[in-house]
Amino acid sequence: MASAEFGFNLISSQDLEGVTVFDPNGDEIGEIDHLMIDCVSGRVRYAVMAFGGFLGLGHSHYPLPWSSLTYDRERGAFVADVTEQQLHDAPEFSDDSWSDREWERRVHEHYHARPYWDEQPGGRTS
Amino acid sequence: MASAEFGFNLISSQDLEGVTVFDPNGDEIGEIDHLMIDCVSGRVRYAVMAFGGFLGLGHSHYPLPWSSLTYDRERGAFVADVTEQQLHDAPEFSDDSWSDREWERRVHEHYHARPYWDEQPGGRTS
Repeated sequence: MASAEFGFNLISSQDLEGVTVFDPNGDEIGEIDHLMIDCVSGRVRYAVMAFGGFLGLGHSHYPLPWSSLTYDRERGAFVADVTEQQLHDAPEFSDDSWSDREWERRVHEHYHARPYWDEQPGGRTS
Repeated sequence: MASAEFGFNLISSQDLEGVTVFDPNGDEIGEIDHLMIDCVSGRVRYAVMAFGGFLGLGHSHYPLPWSSLTYDRERGAFVADVTEQQLHDAPEFSDDSWSDREWERRVHEHYHARPYWDEQPGGRTS
């Protein structure tokens, strides 16, 4: 996938909605419902996934930190570095969560994702 | 506007569609139709604007480099640092343009926007 970094990967925000999300084993677990974008920096911070009953989860929408997703150019899909258990146990969210740093901290910690607001180089926090 | 940099500015990709775009004089010139997102880096590279006949332009959709837009938190809108003449004279585009660096170079030059692929710190190129 390294070559994708230097290729062209521009996709319309409309076309990203509905893109399939696989788990690391290659099983389809859902699709992108929409993205949460920082409209000052122009950076995608979360992908809100929709699960069409794949996992029998209680909620239908789950925000994932953008850094838990990897774009798979060949399949035109995303791979989410999350487990079914993590989705089951994910922190509750509401519309207020998008301006609640404490919630953001919890959800990033939950998925072992690097907090984007630290903007430190390097990989995951754990 | 500096405070917005440190605030919460997360907006759903769906809600960004239809957001008003003003020119630097405060006149409404159009709205966001959709965004072009690099799905590897998670960065917005272009906003494709729709002009509802405001300027009598020949085309109805114009891609603007993301860096020509500034989010105005108070108005919940964008300000585009472009002139009517620039829109009139904008390089033609097609679906192929999104993987054509030469076109990207032309369009960034046209709007005096910093080429994002250079990723250099500092401001506009001219």
